[in-house]
Amino acid sequence: MPLGEFDLIDRFFRRPVRRSPLGIGDDCALLAPAPGQQLAVSCDLLVEGRHFLSTVAPQRLGHKALAVNLSDLAACGARPLAYTLALSMPRVDADFLAGLAAGLHALADAHDLDLVGGDTTAGPLSLCITVFGEVPPGAALLRSGARPGDEIWVSHPVGGGLGDARLALEVFRGTLALPGEAFEQVRRAMELPQPRVALGLMLRGVASAAIDLSDGLLGDLRHVLRRSGAALAQRDGGTAGDGVDALGATLQVDTLPRSAVLAAQTDDWQLRCLLTGGDDYELLFTAPCAARGLVERAGQRSGVALRRIGRIDSAPGLRLCDAAGRPIAFEGQAFDHFRA
Amino acid sequence: MPLGEFDLIDRFFRRPVRRSPLGIGDDCALLAPAPGQQLAVSCDLLVEGRHFLSTVAPQRLGHKALAVNLSDLAACGARPLAYTLALSMPRVDADFLAGLAAGLHALADAHDLDLVGGDTTAGPLSLCITVFGEVPPGAALLRSGARPGDEIWVSHPVGGGLGDARLALEVFRGTLALPGEAFEQVRRAMELPQPRVALGLMLRGVASAAIDLSDGLLGDLRHVLRRSGAALAQRDGGTAGDGVDALGATLQVDTLPRSAVLAAQTDDWQLRCLLTGGDDYELLFTAPCAARGLVERAGQRSGVALRRIGRIDSAPGLRLCDAAGRPIAFEGQAFDHFRA
Repeated sequence: MPLGEFDLIDRFFRRPVRRSPLGIGDDCALLAPAPGQQLAVSCDLLVEGRHFLSTVAPQRLGHKALAVNLSDLAACGARPLAYTLALSMPRVDADFLAGLAAGLHALADAHDLDLVGGDTTAGPLSLCITVFGEVPPGAALLRSGARPGDEIWVSHPVGGGLGDARLALEVFRGTLALPGEAFEQVRRAMELPQPRVALGLMLRGVASAAIDLSDGLLGDLRHVLRRSGAALAQRDGGTAGDGVDALGATLQVDTLPRSAVLAAQTDDWQLRCLLTGGDDYELLFTAPCAARGLVERAGQRSGVALRRIGRIDSAPGLRLCDAAGRPIAFEGQAFDHFRA
Repeated sequence: MPLGEFDLIDRFFRRPVRRSPLGIGDDCALLAPAPGQQLAVSCDLLVEGRHFLSTVAPQRLGHKALAVNLSDLAACGARPLAYTLALSMPRVDADFLAGLAAGLHALADAHDLDLVGGDTTAGPLSLCITVFGEVPPGAALLRSGARPGDEIWVSHPVGGGLGDARLALEVFRGTLALPGEAFEQVRRAMELPQPRVALGLMLRGVASAAIDLSDGLLGDLRHVLRRSGAALAQRDGGTAGDGVDALGATLQVDTLPRSAVLAAQTDDWQLRCLLTGGDDYELLFTAPCAARGLVERAGQRSGVALRRIGRIDSAPGLRLCDAAGRPIAFEGQAFDHFRA
C-alpha cells in the first residue's frame, strides 16, 4: 500500500520539538517567543523549474529551501526559532522524501530550529517554507536605515565571491561551459547557500540597513535605496512616495569579491553575474564609516569574509565605477520572476 | 509593460498594518504578540485542481484560502493576528489578482488580521497561507484532551449542516445533478466556508478537545481519538504508541445536522457526504456532560448552531448507530490527498 498523507508526515517530518510548546500533529503549532521578544517572519516559495532544477539532489533541495528563508532572518538580525513546511509533489517518493528531510533537518539542527508544522498535498513539485525568529523590539535590521555617507558592505565565502550561483545556472542553461571541477564549485554555490545567521546577529546595532542578496546586487541595493529614501523623506515631513529620489549609491565594481572561477570569465559575464546574478544569499548592508572596526569584528567573529564595496550618496541613482573612479556602463536588470 | 513581481505586490497586497510593528516590504515582517501570549501557527497549501477548481471566482478563492487557515486557529481557540501569503501563478492577471485580493482583504478585515508578508512567483496556480494567532499559555484547544464519557459536538450553519461542500464537488464531478438554486446553495458551502473563530474563543476552558473538519467527520474524529488516546496512555505511564486503542467513539448518525438539499438525497449519499465529505470547516469538539450548558451558551453567543452527535468511549473503535441505538454499517475512508 502506498504511503498516505499522514504516514509520510509521521515518517519523514515529525520530530520532537525542543523550543516550542507544540509541534506537528494538531490544528496549530504553538510558539513561545522569549518574554519581550518580537517575532520575525519570512516566507519563500520554491517552484520546480523556476527556483530549482529537477536535477538537484533532494538533500540539497531541502538545504536550499530552508537556507533561503534563514537568509531572510539573517538579514533582519533575528535568531532562528522554528519553521513550517508546505510541500506539494506529484507522488509520494520515499527516496526523494528521505533526502529532502535529511537536508532540511541537518540545516535546522545547525540553527536549533524546530519544524513545527506544515501541509502536504499532491500537485506540482513546490516547497513553501515560513520561518520564525526572535528579535528584541527595535533591534531588527531593516532595509530602511541607510543614510548618505554610509559605507556599503557585502559578505562572501572565504576565498569565494558573488555571482557563482548565476554562473552555475548559465552552465545548466547551456550558455556557458565550465570544466568539471569549476562547475562542481559553482554548482555548490547555487545548491548549498550558507545563510549568514551569525553575521546578522553580530550586525545588530552596527549596520544601519541590511538585505539578503536574492535578486542580484543591483536590484537588492535598489530596494535598500528606495526604502531608506522613503524613510528619510517621511522623517523630513514628506510622504513615502517622495523618497524615490532621496538616495543613491556609488559601487566600486573592482572591489566586488569574486571566485577564481568567475574571475576567469569575460568581463561582461563577470559584471552580469556579480551585479545581477541572483541567488547569492549573502548579506548586503550599510554602516557609518565610524563603525568600520565593529563591522570587521562582526565578520571575524562570525567566520564570514566581508568586503567594503561602495557608499550611499545623497544624489539619486546608482553609479558604477572602476578603481580609478571612472564610470562603468552596465545595462542590467534585477531578477524578476515574472520577467525572467 | 506587464506588471512585475514588485509592482503587483505594491498594487494588490501592500496595506497598512494595524497590529504588527512591520508589514510587507522588508526581508522579514515583525509580529509583537501581546505580553505573555503564545503564538498559534498554521499553514495550508491550496493547489488548483485539487483544493479548488478553475471555475471558482477569484474573490471566493481568496476568501476560502484564508478561511481554511482561520479555521485552524478557531480549532485551537486562538485569536487571529496576522498572515503571510505565498502565491504562485502562471501569469500576472490584474483582474484575477484584484478579485483574489478583495476576497482575502474582506475576510482579513472581518477578523482584524494583518497581511504582513509573503512571496509571489510564476508557476502553477497555488496559494500557501500561514496564519498566526494569539492564545494564553495552556489555553489552546488541542486534539489530545478527549476523555471517555465526553460528549461529541459539531458546529453547523443555522439552518444548514455538514456535507454540502462534498455535494457541490460531486455535481462538478458529474456524479450528481442538482437544480439551480440547490446547486448555488451547496456551491456557496464549498466556496465560502465561514471559519468559526468566535466559537473557538468561547470554547476555551469549556471543550476538552477540538479539531476543524477538513478531511471529513470520521477521519477528523479518528485524529482526535488517536491523539487523545496517546495522551491518556502517556499519562498512565505507557508510550504514545500504546494509545492507538485507548479510546473509541459512538456517533448517532440521525443527529448529524444536514441541509434540506442534502436531506433530499439518497441515504447512501447522505452518509457519504456527512461522514467523509471533507471541506466542511466546522468545529468538531468534545466536552464533559457537565459542561453542556456552557457549550450551548458558547454557541448562542457566537451565533453558530451546535449539535450533540455522540460520545467518547473507553472501548476502541468507531461505532455508528441510528436513533434506536441499532448499528449502521458504513465503509468510508477519510479524505487523503495522495489517495483521493
